[in-house]
Amino acid sequence: MSEYIEHDSDGISVGLVEKKHLIFGHPPNQMRLESGALLGPVTIAYETYGELNADKSNAVLVCHALSGDSHVAGYYREDDPKPGWWDIMVGPGKGIDTEKYFVICSNILGGCMGTTGPSSTNPSTGRPYGLDFPLVTIGDMVDAQKVLVDHLGIDKLLCVAGGSIGGMQVLEWTVRHPELVQSAIALATTTKHSPLAIAFNEVARQAIMADPKWMGGHYYDGPRPDHGLAVARMIGHITYLSEESMRAKFGRRLQNREAFSYNFDADFQVESYLRHQGQKFVERFDANSFLYITKAADYYELERDHGRGSIVEAFSKAKAKFLVVSFTSDWLYPSYQSKTIVQAIKRGGGEVSFCEIEADWGHDAFLLPNERLSNLIRGFMENVSSSIRR
Amino acid sequence: MSEYIEHDSDGISVGLVEKKHLIFGHPPNQMRLESGALLGPVTIAYETYGELNADKSNAVLVCHALSGDSHVAGYYREDDPKPGWWDIMVGPGKGIDTEKYFVICSNILGGCMGTTGPSSTNPSTGRPYGLDFPLVTIGDMVDAQKVLVDHLGIDKLLCVAGGSIGGMQVLEWTVRHPELVQSAIALATTTKHSPLAIAFNEVARQAIMADPKWMGGHYYDGPRPDHGLAVARMIGHITYLSEESMRAKFGRRLQNREAFSYNFDADFQVESYLRHQGQKFVERFDANSFLYITKAADYYELERDHGRGSIVEAFSKAKAKFLVVSFTSDWLYPSYQSKTIVQAIKRGGGEVSFCEIEADWGHDAFLLPNERLSNLIRGFMENVSSSIRR
Repeated sequence: MSEYIEHDSDGISVGLVEKKHLIFGHPPNQMRLESGALLGPVTIAYETYGELNADKSNAVLVCHALSGDSHVAGYYREDDPKPGWWDIMVGPGKGIDTEKYFVICSNILGGCMGTTGPSSTNPSTGRPYGLDFPLVTIGDMVDAQKVLVDHLGIDKLLCVAGGSIGGMQVLEWTVRHPELVQSAIALATTTKHSPLAIAFNEVARQAIMADPKWMGGHYYDGPRPDHGLAVARMIGHITYLSEESMRAKFGRRLQNREAFSYNFDADFQVESYLRHQGQKFVERFDANSFLYITKAADYYELERDHGRGSIVEAFSKAKAKFLVVSFTSDWLYPSYQSKTIVQAIKRGGGEVSFCEIEADWGHDAFLLPNERLSNLIRGFMENVSSSIRR
Repeated sequence: MSEYIEHDSDGISVGLVEKKHLIFGHPPNQMRLESGALLGPVTIAYETYGELNADKSNAVLVCHALSGDSHVAGYYREDDPKPGWWDIMVGPGKGIDTEKYFVICSNILGGCMGTTGPSSTNPSTGRPYGLDFPLVTIGDMVDAQKVLVDHLGIDKLLCVAGGSIGGMQVLEWTVRHPELVQSAIALATTTKHSPLAIAFNEVARQAIMADPKWMGGHYYDGPRPDHGLAVARMIGHITYLSEESMRAKFGRRLQNREAFSYNFDADFQVESYLRHQGQKFVERFDANSFLYITKAADYYELERDHGRGSIVEAFSKAKAKFLVVSFTSDWLYPSYQSKTIVQAIKRGGGEVSFCEIEADWGHDAFLLPNERLSNLIRGFMENVSSSIRR
């Protein structure tokens, strides 16, 4: 961690980092999932940044969203073209300051970036699981992270932080393991998907499953369902932006042409952008993982699982201090959903700070450089640290 | 038209109607399209309702949206399970009263319900056009309707009315043939698609073109790209609803089950609804027509074509009285776009009434029973009729 690399947008990076793996749940001690199914052995891919202090009181767990991974910041190699997915927030002097905190991030259960998921080898067949992989839930993802945290010898997390589906994991941590979580940062998230969010996910899943190359999920020996996955990603990308951001970013500008093609080429920049995003995604992501993670997000409902339907009762179990942040143009997880969380925490007797950030960038805003967000997170973490030291 | 059939939701129907066909543009007199391509012969499928009066002053042209057709009201047969697509608005005593007005509706150029489109026979090959069908524009659709209006011996339309892509045709009529159009009713529409609307259309098109059965558009001899078209329709359906309407209609309710499937079945009602809509659509619609019509809508930009980029200049050409209606929860063509139209008409010296209707049903609201909308349209048409008679 001694090597610092300049980062274009945001100054100093945490430098070179390494992906590590933890394996647990060997039979007969498999992990029991919320569905009742058993899964094991389970590999968790993870990375850490900064140094764990002597009394192990400075650990921060970052939870990633749908297409993220354990690589939250820094570079694997000197010549890496770009850093981890939240390098703007995690690093020396940044919102989550790696000179002060020991940051942990692991690939979620069901993912495809090193943690066990549908593309992993099924020990009972010696071949990739495909759709024989059991459905996992947000709670299962948190349980796997808990094994990692225990493995690292940490018995209290200073903070759990994340956005979107990562934010769901944050909320779940606070009520599933309240004694472990001293503070929680939940960005652009919700305790349950609206039917609109479910609808988008379902159409994206249908696009994958409609691709004949998907083969009922058992495609690992042959060509992959790239067309279906690309369409799924394009649908996702629409929901991550906002009408305003699309108008600002693309308008009705044409892509490398003066006049219409009068055929089905990508005439408009927005079409070209979406096609490009779809193409890029298939190179790095597994279609079945897309199915499993979106389904886990759709199933998630904190108040059902922890409050017998009452969100106040659910949050009354939490002991963390909360920072909840929403973005005005996020129409996937609109601000009203964050406000519901904030009211429930308050009514449950909890402590919560809330900020609705004016931003044109839709749901993706939590991933983009934003000084206000960095300052909010920095300030919140300093407060939490100092109140714990006192 | 003497036979009246009871209609569940809205009283009396116009009764039994018949689809008719007009054929024009035989070589060497083909239709010249905006792209410069020639098309012909062209068949226009159309229906009429009510009686044309002696001085031919009571003709109303209704323009349909993406998935509509010439069958705006009434029934083809006694045992038809349901009436035309806007039977709530068009019929005896309804918003557009067929006892007073002679209503015409034709299937749009590029469609698949009787008018020439990509599934029609290409006279130069004797086989369906497929992607050899030329791109058509909203202006081309209007030109084809103009041929029909001329054929019916009508030299002034009392009104042109329609919503969504039908509304685009309405606006285009007012500036393309200003002398012919005495009034115009434009519902839930826009003079140009936002990049968000283009994005949804593009992803839907990609879903169709990703289906291997699409075969570059030449699938008419074999199986059809039903999977791709179903996904495209599901994407469309999300945009026709609204977050509010989905919450009211579906919430997070499960479909015929008490607990989650823990597989990729349709657990939630909203998933089941979308799958059903996708399946129903492939039984009645042609995938290539979906491509052509959405592309025409994406290309459309009234201010570019008629005002050198100025929407005020474009509308200053119109001589019609306008009624513009938007719906609060329509996020495909949001109210601000209708307000832009209204301001431009006023600033261009035109006469316009505007109403933003409070409705939870999103873009689809213009198709649903709404007493306020019926009364607005009825009142507007009575005003226009009487001011012309004076």
